[in-house]
Amino acid sequence: MFISKEVQPSATLKFSQKAREKVSKGEVIYSLGLGEPDFNPPLEIVESVYEAAKKGFNKYGNSMGLDSLRSHIAQKLQKENKILCEKDDICITFGAKQALVLALMAILHPGDEVINISPCYVSYVPQIKIAEPQAVIKNVDLCRKDFSLDFDAFEAAVTAKTKCIILNSPNNPSGKVFTRSEFDRVISLISDRGIYLISDEIYEYLNFGDCDTVSPGSYRDIADRVFTINGFSKSFGMTGWRIGYMTVPPDQRKNINTLVQHINTNVTSFIQKGLVGIYDIDRSFLSNYNLHLRKMAGYIAGELDTAGLKVVEPQGGLFCFVDVSAIGLKSDAFATALLEEQNVAVTPGIAFGDNWDDYVRISFAGKEEEIVSGIEGIKKFVL
Amino acid sequence: MFISKEVQPSATLKFSQKAREKVSKGEVIYSLGLGEPDFNPPLEIVESVYEAAKKGFNKYGNSMGLDSLRSHIAQKLQKENKILCEKDDICITFGAKQALVLALMAILHPGDEVINISPCYVSYVPQIKIAEPQAVIKNVDLCRKDFSLDFDAFEAAVTAKTKCIILNSPNNPSGKVFTRSEFDRVISLISDRGIYLISDEIYEYLNFGDCDTVSPGSYRDIADRVFTINGFSKSFGMTGWRIGYMTVPPDQRKNINTLVQHINTNVTSFIQKGLVGIYDIDRSFLSNYNLHLRKMAGYIAGELDTAGLKVVEPQGGLFCFVDVSAIGLKSDAFATALLEEQNVAVTPGIAFGDNWDDYVRISFAGKEEEIVSGIEGIKKFVL
Repeated sequence: MFISKEVQPSATLKFSQKAREKVSKGEVIYSLGLGEPDFNPPLEIVESVYEAAKKGFNKYGNSMGLDSLRSHIAQKLQKENKILCEKDDICITFGAKQALVLALMAILHPGDEVINISPCYVSYVPQIKIAEPQAVIKNVDLCRKDFSLDFDAFEAAVTAKTKCIILNSPNNPSGKVFTRSEFDRVISLISDRGIYLISDEIYEYLNFGDCDTVSPGSYRDIADRVFTINGFSKSFGMTGWRIGYMTVPPDQRKNINTLVQHINTNVTSFIQKGLVGIYDIDRSFLSNYNLHLRKMAGYIAGELDTAGLKVVEPQGGLFCFVDVSAIGLKSDAFATALLEEQNVAVTPGIAFGDNWDDYVRISFAGKEEEIVSGIEGIKKFVL
Repeated sequence: MFISKEVQPSATLKFSQKAREKVSKGEVIYSLGLGEPDFNPPLEIVESVYEAAKKGFNKYGNSMGLDSLRSHIAQKLQKENKILCEKDDICITFGAKQALVLALMAILHPGDEVINISPCYVSYVPQIKIAEPQAVIKNVDLCRKDFSLDFDAFEAAVTAKTKCIILNSPNNPSGKVFTRSEFDRVISLISDRGIYLISDEIYEYLNFGDCDTVSPGSYRDIADRVFTINGFSKSFGMTGWRIGYMTVPPDQRKNINTLVQHINTNVTSFIQKGLVGIYDIDRSFLSNYNLHLRKMAGYIAGELDTAGLKVVEPQGGLFCFVDVSAIGLKSDAFATALLEEQNVAVTPGIAFGDNWDDYVRISFAGKEEEIVSGIEGIKKFVL
């Protein structure tokens, strides 16, 4: 493939690498960079994964995923997300990230247009160009006031060549949770046009505002065009395990099956076996974590407001996306100087979209004391 | 991407699926289809993987792989394969299969030609077309007499547009282990032309003939153009774990790093941690398994010879590639009828290359009694 200029190393990973270098020199770094919860996977899951390996679940398996895990996921999607799906609609992947790129590989042809809501997860744009170097990306910016969807811009971006739209709610990096009425309008705009909707719901269980999580796959008008993408990383403390999944529209099942056969063979068999039942375990740790996130979101918004920075208080996910235009530095310069002077690692807004070079992303996934120290550093830096 | 007609579901997986359906109806199937050793991973590795998960190796890590595992692999490649490489030359992937497609994605541009030795692993051709739909595949057939490389055909296939050649030794499906003099000639033909060599060495430790395993990455003339691809699946009974690796040529490191950042994030962290030291464990089980493979290879060649089928006795890998032209059936018809009438699953030769429709692949990876029953079934079928 032609690796286009949009396919660059991940900026979030670049800054965490810089931070690691400082740590290796003995410096204390306040890391507000990566979106990684600081808890470990539930011990009962670690044990059941171990049991599966000991019992011999170490061999090749179905490329689309272990049937029992796919059934378990389908039940969760039916019950919690109101998505009408069955085992055979599910494909298990090496992380939600891989599900995304596979969905794009399956549907995109040269010249197809993709509507991408900006700011967005750092890998969407590179993934579109990895999947199809000749795809055309139409970025639609969120409203700066409150990160709501800009429907005029959205409607203007839709053309006869639009193949898909990527939506991510709760949203990285903005912390926005799209409302049901926003989803209603998006779907009414695309439902009769044969446009696919790739719905990245990886932050589903990290939703601490007043807005219910909505799965667009639950809308009957568009259900057979939605890839609902999710995984276990963020909610169950297993970011490094790399297990995600997607629902696959009926007309894309053959493409996805063929791709995973020739790219994956199968996703790690003993882990899949050990994850069966994961949605039935005690999830009270998630309520506690959401309380922490809500508290941190409010704290950060309050503190930075007093420091003269504009913050839209996040409602979900792990991030605050902060307007630093008042400081007069572009985002990369801001993040670089902040790391250098105050040992605080954040991610420059430019990583999330060309028009967001006056923002930085602050993660509050980690421990309160680290977040407080980091925010103190930011306040010293800007005041 | 445009999913071209060469990208079809895997024929090996299709037949194993048919066989599973018969099993689910209560029938006894003699499975000589998949290339999967029947032993489990060493228990000490299962334990160390479990320990790693318990100790918290569950988080994001380096996209190219865990440093300690990359160092361990680099040491193995230096010592056993005489490849001059270091940690930073290694990329750990979700199986050798993923390493292959990533290497192809990194190097292939539209119009580039790939020399593919035929018969070959079922995924090479689809992977080339997944990596670059406009790549041109030049198949070069092995000599039918003894599966040696046909250098006249090989030389004729090399052009100014040749970007890479894929070599697999020990070879699937032919059982051939290419000799040092064959590698000498291949490398002398391509070394001054800037052609990459993708060397799939996944069957390295399954070599029971008289031929040493040769790693082309050990040739200084071409070392910086070789992707040496290997993994743990076949040798350590962990086909379902999906951990492989490759050496990455210096000029492709940025491309590979970018691709794995946006496709994988990282390979399962606790498994990587648990695999550190795997090449230092007691590997006597591999000697025993090779004795089994050698015995089975000789047995199959002898039995089928008495049944009037021509067999080149395999020297490595897990397969016998058998000329069934004497029977007068095309390979898919042969395999389908054999499964139907004798409950023996083999793989049709057409899956491994267009010119091999009068061959079938027989796997002897499994237990002796199953292989004996399967061969008896084949003899009944053909006599």
